Amino acid sequence: MAEENTIYIGKKATMNYVLAVVSQFNGGCDDVCIKARGRAISRAVDVSEIVRNRFVRDVDYKDVKIETEHLPGLDGSEANVSSIEIYLAR
Amino acid sequence: MAEENTIYIGKKATMNYVLAVVSQFNGGCDDVCIKARGRAISRAVDVSEIVRNRFVRDVDYKDVKIETEHLPGLDGSEANVSSIEIYLAR
Repeated sequence: MAEENTIYIGKKATMNYVLAVVSQFNGGCDDVCIKARGRAISRAVDVSEIVRNRFVRDVDYKDVKIETEHLPGLDGSEANVSSIEIYLAR
Repeated sequence: MAEENTIYIGKKATMNYVLAVVSQFNGGCDDVCIKARGRAISRAVDVSEIVRNRFVRDVDYKDVKIETEHLPGLDGSEANVSSIEIYLAR
């Protein structure tokens, strides 16, 4: 999947990301990946459900991947953060 | 899957739920379902990653289901809440 089909979920309002995903599908993409880490994971799930139930009714979940990312902390230690990748496809 | 193999994630500390899942596996269960709604979804993902990476190394994701639940609000209206079901199995 091309990198431009990936939407990273951050701290903005949920509907910003919904709009971004819907734009990808309306622009002709057949699959979109929604990625999030830590607390943004709940928002990523909200985004994909809102897209699927309200805006692009013909997409479904192709895959959901859950992983742990090892991020370097400021003090040289390592922080483990959970991440999710939600693959939506027509 | 039997109902007792299901762990519902709420607002307690993450490690409480990790302990509950690990106990299920150590008690002889071969699969456990971790369920969460709304903001607890991030915690559910943390719980499953901690179990898998630190405590029960031989389990993996069997399935991850994302849905929307329609809950009745106090004023008779309906609230939509995202939910996740994470299936871990040996």
